Amino acid sequence: MLEYRAPLRDMRFALYELFQADALWERLPIPSEPSRELADAILEEGGRIAAEVLSPLLRSGDEEGVRWEDGNVYTPAGFREAYRTFAEGGWVGLGGNPEYGGQGIPKMLSAMVEEMVASAGGAFGLYAILTSGAALLLDAHGREEQKNRFLPPLYEGRWAGVMCLTEAHAGTDLGMLRTRAEPQSGGTYRLTGTKIFITGGEQDLTENIIHLVLARLPDAPAGTRGISLFIVPKFLVNEDGSLGERNAVHCGSIEHKMGLHGSSTCVINYDGAQGYLVGEPGRGLNYMFTMMNYERVSVGLQGLGCAERSWQGAARYARERLQGRALRGPVNPDGPADPILVHGDVRRMLLTQRAYIEGGRAFAAFVNMQLDLAKYGEGAEREQGAALVALLTPIAKAFLTDLGLEACVLGQQVLGGHGYIREWGMEQLVRDVRISQIYEGTNGIQALDLLGRKVVADQGQTALALFGKIREWAASVTDQPGAIEFVGPVVVAVDRLHSTTLWLLNHVTEDPDLINSSAVDYLQLFGNVMFGWLWARAALVALPQAESDAFYAAKLETARFFMARCLPRVQALAAMVETPSATVMAISDQAFDV
Amino acid sequence: MLEYRAPLRDMRFALYELFQADALWERLPIPSEPSRELADAILEEGGRIAAEVLSPLLRSGDEEGVRWEDGNVYTPAGFREAYRTFAEGGWVGLGGNPEYGGQGIPKMLSAMVEEMVASAGGAFGLYAILTSGAALLLDAHGREEQKNRFLPPLYEGRWAGVMCLTEAHAGTDLGMLRTRAEPQSGGTYRLTGTKIFITGGEQDLTENIIHLVLARLPDAPAGTRGISLFIVPKFLVNEDGSLGERNAVHCGSIEHKMGLHGSSTCVINYDGAQGYLVGEPGRGLNYMFTMMNYERVSVGLQGLGCAERSWQGAARYARERLQGRALRGPVNPDGPADPILVHGDVRRMLLTQRAYIEGGRAFAAFVNMQLDLAKYGEGAEREQGAALVALLTPIAKAFLTDLGLEACVLGQQVLGGHGYIREWGMEQLVRDVRISQIYEGTNGIQALDLLGRKVVADQGQTALALFGKIREWAASVTDQPGAIEFVGPVVVAVDRLHSTTLWLLNHVTEDPDLINSSAVDYLQLFGNVMFGWLWARAALVALPQAESDAFYAAKLETARFFMARCLPRVQALAAMVETPSATVMAISDQAFDV
Repeated sequence: MLEYRAPLRDMRFALYELFQADALWERLPIPSEPSRELADAILEEGGRIAAEVLSPLLRSGDEEGVRWEDGNVYTPAGFREAYRTFAEGGWVGLGGNPEYGGQGIPKMLSAMVEEMVASAGGAFGLYAILTSGAALLLDAHGREEQKNRFLPPLYEGRWAGVMCLTEAHAGTDLGMLRTRAEPQSGGTYRLTGTKIFITGGEQDLTENIIHLVLARLPDAPAGTRGISLFIVPKFLVNEDGSLGERNAVHCGSIEHKMGLHGSSTCVINYDGAQGYLVGEPGRGLNYMFTMMNYERVSVGLQGLGCAERSWQGAARYARERLQGRALRGPVNPDGPADPILVHGDVRRMLLTQRAYIEGGRAFAAFVNMQLDLAKYGEGAEREQGAALVALLTPIAKAFLTDLGLEACVLGQQVLGGHGYIREWGMEQLVRDVRISQIYEGTNGIQALDLLGRKVVADQGQTALALFGKIREWAASVTDQPGAIEFVGPVVVAVDRLHSTTLWLLNHVTEDPDLINSSAVDYLQLFGNVMFGWLWARAALVALPQAESDAFYAAKLETARFFMARCLPRVQALAAMVETPSATVMAISDQAFDV
Repeated sequence: MLEYRAPLRDMRFALYELFQADALWERLPIPSEPSRELADAILEEGGRIAAEVLSPLLRSGDEEGVRWEDGNVYTPAGFREAYRTFAEGGWVGLGGNPEYGGQGIPKMLSAMVEEMVASAGGAFGLYAILTSGAALLLDAHGREEQKNRFLPPLYEGRWAGVMCLTEAHAGTDLGMLRTRAEPQSGGTYRLTGTKIFITGGEQDLTENIIHLVLARLPDAPAGTRGISLFIVPKFLVNEDGSLGERNAVHCGSIEHKMGLHGSSTCVINYDGAQGYLVGEPGRGLNYMFTMMNYERVSVGLQGLGCAERSWQGAARYARERLQGRALRGPVNPDGPADPILVHGDVRRMLLTQRAYIEGGRAFAAFVNMQLDLAKYGEGAEREQGAALVALLTPIAKAFLTDLGLEACVLGQQVLGGHGYIREWGMEQLVRDVRISQIYEGTNGIQALDLLGRKVVADQGQTALALFGKIREWAASVTDQPGAIEFVGPVVVAVDRLHSTTLWLLNHVTEDPDLINSSAVDYLQLFGNVMFGWLWARAALVALPQAESDAFYAAKLETARFFMARCLPRVQALAAMVETPSATVMAISDQAFDV
């Protein structure tokens, strides 16, 4: 069931038909000068690599897992060769800065390759994604000399980059971290401490690993303002870029996890390791957010990618597996039974997957378009892009991964008992996708970020402006034939989101715990409304072409499904959000004693 | 995090305070003559065995798994000794018929032990539960001689019972099964065929394994009416009950699964194995339903048990783990951070678990009380009990297991990154609980059973009568001080369920696919309303005692949480149910080609 086929048609639909990416690329000053032809070529080649090189490693990588021996980590069979192919194809540096060897491809496009890699490669993709994020951070905050030294080999995929934040006692609460950095003569530092949960912290895929490490300088203030950021290479790098001696960075052990077995999750010990300060002291966490925000969207794409793979497996199975008969009479009268696709509930499960996957792909494209506008746009367009990126990044991370789990569970369910058996591959997707709701800031933290920092902090300005845009769009299309079927529910939904947002703004001063107690349901509410809007836009594109073309016909029916069977969640979520925090805060702490 | 402590206080609350089980037991002619004292002793001893004997095997059983070698299956270290202790304690025969050595304990009570075993033992419990179910079937449909021969050793746990339905091409669609039974001289049969997914089909825990096998006699009609039921022992049984020669029943392999690694899931080959017909030819599936309905409630309890265990782990972690500060100011000012229990979203997750677990425990007790009434009651009470059992069994199976997954995912989420690491044990609960939504009839099949066979088939009579009872109850308690806060939302919810039921009855003739397309959302809707009712009843019990007693105070706050944060799902689900089947049926089959 686990063959992978890149959903190129739907990706092109999102790029060109929903968002006119080609027109946008033409007008923005993007150094790689992307065109529709270039983009299509990238998508096709990306799809080929994903299907032919990465996909065959998904199951074997899970069964074999990474192996830790005497400080070395060995990735599963085939990973090294695949990584070389992947790196040599230029995929690691796809979105990188061309001045240092990157390809400068807009995020809206490179993100679609990310989705493919997540679908096909699972754990494999993390090594590359973290490298891209590390390069983004260095490009944004590193000194010229650091960029010259580190970016080219990162973009080439010869070196990898990893992010080193968590310590055993400091996960979400990074202010408590203890890793120390002592200044040395010559402007370098010696780092001492232990980090945990370092994805790709040690591996056998690349010549070098560049650790981006959060640590404290001597006499740094307590809390997050005392955190600085350091480059700590596994092998020191000579002036000419060649590798020097081994640095005092070692992998103390690896974790045994629920899934993502092909990805190494390392305990890393820094024993006086040599490091280089990035930017100013005390600003480490700010810099790290450049990488974290990038990775958050990537983690959302991981959720989406797993969901797509699960959908493909479930849809194939539903077409092939013969059990029972259609309620309206056999559709396969000469066979022993009908394919299970005839059963309404099987279709409901598949369509729920599909509605959230295609909605998610459109949403991710929208967010990534804002990233491109924030990077290459000018004036108000740039500002608006940046504001939307800030607002929507937590939704992209959390909503796409929550739906990722839901979709993978549904896909597994379609296979019945076979869904629970490892060799069919569907249960692996559930195990693999599950981490995406946890790492890079748990989905609860994303929701706090959305409601606290992105909505309440600016008194709802950015959010309310977005709701206004959606209403404007609705007003502008309502007279299109057939539009009201889709626009109607979306206006109702966005009004509900709007009123819930105002309810929160109105009550949060007297009930500050609301920011935490209502956050997750608010994020879910917001996400569903965004998806509703994008599904309505998709439906309007599909409407005039649905009779003559199966792709648009399916798009239209899936839009109908979303309106009828997914969007009603909005009403329940809004009611849950508009609940005083006392519903969770009033119960005594002792009630949680077991 | 994985120590287990049986929730005895809440079990007693459900038994005595919600449902007055002690008064019921006094009045029903139950041969074991249960009293509150006996019940409490059973619960305490069950809790002790669960915590001390079973709980320590949960993680090790998962890591080691079962092993298959040359047709033999070896359970993980410690299982054999634990099973002996468990069997010798009389736990396998707890609910069994006293005429043949069972203990005749009412289901309402024995089910609470089942929950404990599911929480503490995970995979371990299945061997026993299937044995109890097989005994129930033989007691109901076997000949006297069969009962005398097989029931005592099954109740003693010296032998095990297993159910053998599925074949590779026949899962949900049992009508297609092919295993043959050829009559022999002497009234026995020779069975030939291959079954898959046979839980406990082979193991090293018991002296003998009694396979209850669905098979076809020569010239049996096609479909389910051609299915008969056979007893096929692993070792033939001599007249005196001693073991004879090995029967031609062999385990061809075991499955490698997502979870439940300590439970053997076997391919079983019957190569002319000797078997004995149960009851009449052609009625095998009917008989098997005696076992299946029993196992369905048990599988629901498995979902509940995993959820309880996950809640315990998450609550402990939330009390101990220090990260961040309370929004209203530090509660642990001398420590480096506050326990994460201060955060509203952590409490939301824990309370969602708890509201569904305690609601689930009450619901299971209610269903099991109906089972006892159907067995020991008389006249209208007996009939009503049987009707409610039929109506509510699919909800007990599917809703409790769906909530089981949700609760286990939430518990895992509370632990953040540690939730994903195997040694913490929380991810295992997600993997273990997942199968409960699939086996014993997928939850989609349960929903079809509810809507098609239990609601539409009798034109809603049983369901509408139940809604009427709930309204009567509401009317009878509304004047109690403080009641309206809880009764109000429940009446709104039951009215919504009622109108949705009528909508379905009204539309199903013209739109027969509704029975399939709306089934799962209808079951979810029904389940939430039932839980709302039971939470309101619990709140009314707790109200007068909440100020003076922490248990009732927590019960009351959790009831408030359920009303505010869980029950609103009803509104969304009702809207989803009341959707023409065209939303899933109209899209073309080709749209599912990948």
